[in-house]
Amino acid sequence: MIKVGIVGGTGYTGVELLRLLAQHPEVQLAVITSRADAGIPVATMFPSLRQRVKLKFEDPKNANLRICDVVFFATPNGVAMEQAPALLDAGVRVIDLAADFRLKDVGEWEHWYGLPHASPQWVEKAVYGLPEHDRPAIRNALLVANPGCYPTAVQLGLLPLLEAGLVEPDGLIADAKSGVSGAGRKAEVHTLFSEASDNFKAYAVAGHRHLPEIRQGLARMARQPVGLTFVPHLTPMIRGIHATLYARIRSEADFQELYEQRYAHEAFVDVLPAGSHPDTRSVRAANVCRIAVHRPQRGNMLVVLAVIDNLVKGAAGQAIQNMNIMFGLRETEGLWQVAVLP
Amino acid sequence: MIKVGIVGGTGYTGVELLRLLAQHPEVQLAVITSRADAGIPVATMFPSLRQRVKLKFEDPKNANLRICDVVFFATPNGVAMEQAPALLDAGVRVIDLAADFRLKDVGEWEHWYGLPHASPQWVEKAVYGLPEHDRPAIRNALLVANPGCYPTAVQLGLLPLLEAGLVEPDGLIADAKSGVSGAGRKAEVHTLFSEASDNFKAYAVAGHRHLPEIRQGLARMARQPVGLTFVPHLTPMIRGIHATLYARIRSEADFQELYEQRYAHEAFVDVLPAGSHPDTRSVRAANVCRIAVHRPQRGNMLVVLAVIDNLVKGAAGQAIQNMNIMFGLRETEGLWQVAVLP
Amino acid sequence: MIKVGIVGGTGYTGVELLRLLAQHPEVQLAVITSRADAGIPVATMFPSLRQRVKLKFEDPKNANLRICDVVFFATPNGVAMEQAPALLDAGVRVIDLAADFRLKDVGEWEHWYGLPHASPQWVEKAVYGLPEHDRPAIRNALLVANPGCYPTAVQLGLLPLLEAGLVEPDGLIADAKSGVSGAGRKAEVHTLFSEASDNFKAYAVAGHRHLPEIRQGLARMARQPVGLTFVPHLTPMIRGIHATLYARIRSEADFQELYEQRYAHEAFVDVLPAGSHPDTRSVRAANVCRIAVHRPQRGNMLVVLAVIDNLVKGAAGQAIQNMNIMFGLRETEGLWQVAVLP
Amino acid sequence: MIKVGIVGGTGYTGVELLRLLAQHPEVQLAVITSRADAGIPVATMFPSLRQRVKLKFEDPKNANLRICDVVFFATPNGVAMEQAPALLDAGVRVIDLAADFRLKDVGEWEHWYGLPHASPQWVEKAVYGLPEHDRPAIRNALLVANPGCYPTAVQLGLLPLLEAGLVEPDGLIADAKSGVSGAGRKAEVHTLFSEASDNFKAYAVAGHRHLPEIRQGLARMARQPVGLTFVPHLTPMIRGIHATLYARIRSEADFQELYEQRYAHEAFVDVLPAGSHPDTRSVRAANVCRIAVHRPQRGNMLVVLAVIDNLVKGAAGQAIQNMNIMFGLRETEGLWQVAVLP
Repeated sequence: MIKVGIVGGTGYTGVELLRLLAQHPEVQLAVITSRADAGIPVATMFPSLRQRVKLKFEDPKNANLRICDVVFFATPNGVAMEQAPALLDAGVRVIDLAADFRLKDVGEWEHWYGLPHASPQWVEKAVYGLPEHDRPAIRNALLVANPGCYPTAVQLGLLPLLEAGLVEPDGLIADAKSGVSGAGRKAEVHTLFSEASDNFKAYAVAGHRHLPEIRQGLARMARQPVGLTFVPHLTPMIRGIHATLYARIRSEADFQELYEQRYAHEAFVDVLPAGSHPDTRSVRAANVCRIAVHRPQRGNMLVVLAVIDNLVKGAAGQAIQNMNIMFGLRETEGLWQVAVLP
Repeated sequence: MIKVGIVGGTGYTGVELLRLLAQHPEVQLAVITSRADAGIPVATMFPSLRQRVKLKFEDPKNANLRICDVVFFATPNGVAMEQAPALLDAGVRVIDLAADFRLKDVGEWEHWYGLPHASPQWVEKAVYGLPEHDRPAIRNALLVANPGCYPTAVQLGLLPLLEAGLVEPDGLIADAKSGVSGAGRKAEVHTLFSEASDNFKAYAVAGHRHLPEIRQGLARMARQPVGLTFVPHLTPMIRGIHATLYARIRSEADFQELYEQRYAHEAFVDVLPAGSHPDTRSVRAANVCRIAVHRPQRGNMLVVLAVIDNLVKGAAGQAIQNMNIMFGLRETEGLWQVAVLP
Repeated sequence: MIKVGIVGGTGYTGVELLRLLAQHPEVQLAVITSRADAGIPVATMFPSLRQRVKLKFEDPKNANLRICDVVFFATPNGVAMEQAPALLDAGVRVIDLAADFRLKDVGEWEHWYGLPHASPQWVEKAVYGLPEHDRPAIRNALLVANPGCYPTAVQLGLLPLLEAGLVEPDGLIADAKSGVSGAGRKAEVHTLFSEASDNFKAYAVAGHRHLPEIRQGLARMARQPVGLTFVPHLTPMIRGIHATLYARIRSEADFQELYEQRYAHEAFVDVLPAGSHPDTRSVRAANVCRIAVHRPQRGNMLVVLAVIDNLVKGAAGQAIQNMNIMFGLRETEGLWQVAVLP
Repeated sequence: MIKVGIVGGTGYTGVELLRLLAQHPEVQLAVITSRADAGIPVATMFPSLRQRVKLKFEDPKNANLRICDVVFFATPNGVAMEQAPALLDAGVRVIDLAADFRLKDVGEWEHWYGLPHASPQWVEKAVYGLPEHDRPAIRNALLVANPGCYPTAVQLGLLPLLEAGLVEPDGLIADAKSGVSGAGRKAEVHTLFSEASDNFKAYAVAGHRHLPEIRQGLARMARQPVGLTFVPHLTPMIRGIHATLYARIRSEADFQELYEQRYAHEAFVDVLPAGSHPDTRSVRAANVCRIAVHRPQRGNMLVVLAVIDNLVKGAAGQAIQNMNIMFGLRETEGLWQVAVLP
């Protein structure tokens, strides 16, 4: 049994980690911390976990995370970079679900996140945890930077094209739509039901923090810099990301075949038959990315549709997938739930 | 491995059976039928089941259901009473998720369902499948009448009070609210998104088909006839039933204690601490009923709140719970999923 | 033209007042105040009002509300009782959309609202503003206590029965369901989209602040104390209240006829044909209450269904209706919008 | 008073026409037809219209539409081309809310709509009714082809850029999201609440019927053919379209200024301040298009955001705007409702 700790378990990625880890046959939930809610049983805050999670939130100051084999940080940006190094030095492996270790360029990180970085040395050692691209490095990683939700959908959607060099690396467009849980469990007016329901809008068109992360990831795949316009939108559903991706064709190919072959051995990427339109509910509560490739009117623009559950393949599920890889478990262990539909 | 067949797998209870059975370690999905969609792979209609269910829908005429150990009928009312007897005669056990075998009074059934009953002899032999009340009879049942969604929530909510004779059996009120999936996967105007979203209404106040079923169940518990006003409502969510139950106190008792003791050994009924308000999402996609008991202002009216997922504890999950009991498996086998929240 | 001021215009009742008053032909919007947002144009905060409302929020300290003929308080409870008296003394008429002047029993108000009352003398002079019951008094009122949203729906639903003495005044049940905008435009976790969407729950079953207000109102109608169980619920829609009301019959009558006659000359109460089920969207954004009366199975329990838009007939619309009455305008002036469906 | 007839009033554009026309001071609703629902009062089908619309649906065979000054066709595609010519010949002016007269190329129309066109001669005479582009021609039109919902949002969003020739006319992208009411009031499975709620998907990526209409419109503005990729999506809200438009800059300009000047005198197009993100609810139930222009990271890609209510500026409201122009009324007459928010 792997002893698991969670730092910051009161947000949506935290409760999703708990949901999945409570059902994972090789995991023992050992410690969970929350500054604000220390002493409260987890199942009091989240009645969905009654009978299943017995832990109480512990004060981070008293919590003994060093007994863990791995600790997940489900904290706001800027926490893991402060607290993870001591754990890492003590031999505990760390998976950070926030952004602290995602950008290799520390200066760019500091620009987008508005903070000096507290542990640039660990940025260097951190492994970006997109298993479908980074599996070998994840196996031996001490510290995994779990990808963001938008970056997961966009990167998986464009990966086969960029690796194969078949589209123009400039002028890529990612028009992405997210459910509201992506904004987190924070008391804010703009994500109130009465504001976000029956409503649709774009946001952060001038620049979203996931832009440099996506650009870095796509450049790795293309082995050259890419030009990307990224527009996120808020859509009135709880879970789900739908990325609509536009890329101009540089070389002809059987694009359907390309995708099917690239992902043939990936348990968590599902390439739909030609002509399909994946809907987000087909991945609700499941650790899977479904993808369809279109070439409208046989023109020179490819349209790729990629859907994930932002809390699962876009956060907690992918983090556990990384844990499975790090600890030599079957990659699907504890992650083989069927999507909840309707 | 139990060989399972499903008749009528294209509705919401059908796809929910598939979701749960595909994850059940003791089950082999053997046959699924659909008249309209014969020949189509199940996963083509429901992409959430891709990689997980390989079956195709078979024409009921050709399907060999007799190889099954148990067959679930997830059909409209009136089908099972025609088709189940032949299977039962061939030794196949049957669980009917429709209403055909729920009412012991055939005349009343014919009144509410507007059809002559095709197999009254099997009505007599059928066991009503509310495990928390009928477990011993279910064990040996050949034919289980799986309770309706509203009846499950209302009966579990009132059971302790009626068994103990602590409330007036007359003047009971069940004000129940259902998510829209309760209306099924039928093309109808009134359940379109643009009709049912951002909207709330009562329906069938003059008389709903679940009224006689609930009345029969409550009378069994009270060992006398009961008077019940039942008002169902449609609420803009996909899954979930919330029953708000009103009963006048006849004898004083510690009602919280009563509920906790009655359900202490039930895996799928969760009595919340005093003062709680269960929300439907705390049981989303899970086979559990959560209950809270209130006595406002120490008056003589008890208010019981009971929530279930109408497709799980109110249909497919309870059917599988019944299967587990019938086949001597652990009752929680394949049904231990944590609720999906948010 | 009536010069109108609004204190506290940044909540949902505030923006709804603005929407309706901006379209009122006899109104000039003169002043609007907000402590937190002083200096900001109203239309910057609410782009729906662009081109239509030119005012900026003013600091309450500097705002000259005394130039107004009438001031609406769309503030949290406890503000109007502090600020209204000075305006009233200066000859400005006041309509309070909060609860400060609703309960005639100051002690009970202080019990439920947890504050000492700052102007009990004005409680006495205040007129409760349910036009269908209090029209004569409203005409000459200086200070109107605008009814709460639940109280409006429940009182209009039960008024004909209680006035006529046809039902038991004890054992009344109001099972009420509200859209989330009823909770206001406050940054709180429990009304986030990801919490309140696809979810249903009861709340405040032990005792809600609208209980004494409803009880007071019903007692006035019945001319005797009433016994009431009131259970509010949160339903995943933005606007709308649906009250399901249960009352035991004391004397036989043609209840449909009773309702039709009682409300025959009320522009804003619509009694539906026998057998109807009003849905909340049929009153969305309109100042109307639609009611249906049922007597299931010809038993002794009446079931009344009453729907309103909580922000219109349950708040801003009713406040303007009161203003129209106070200033001798046609009661429907500026309030004759057709409901928005779908 | 203008005598108005409506053919096919039982869909969402029909009921929206009724809502708006019932409040239009210069309109007398004279006739409304429906084959399926002849004899039924309009307000029985749509209780939101009770007390406001007294008409009954008439059988199209008996209805005397020739007494009307103008007839709106709110029918499925293919009806107006059969029935409008006789009315036109009788001197009745016609506004078609369907697609029958939108495409000037009859062959292309027949290709996309799969029908031979029944009145190509009227296609030639029909005026495309986008007032902001076609106002002069609309004034004298006998027959107006009211634009589609997507085409309205996309054309208004790109019009200033294409008229001024500032962007590449090739490689335009319109990523558009629609509320579910755009699919109409038809009993179909894919638009059921339980299918479309809490879900997001693209559809018709291979080719949507609005593509040729948009292409034709943009080409008129650009005075040359344009290349367009159009991807529509279904988003879980009732009303609203959000078009996210991508265009590569050909010549530098102050794009914010360009939009503000182009629409300075348009009552129904609102250019938001630089940096804004219009949300669909800011136009809910109102006849307005709100637009924001972005240039992320000062790159060479412009991102234009345009929102409308698909049933108002995208259908019924725009049709009435056209009527106002045709009959010499103030263009805003009967259309000056404030958007409903929240």
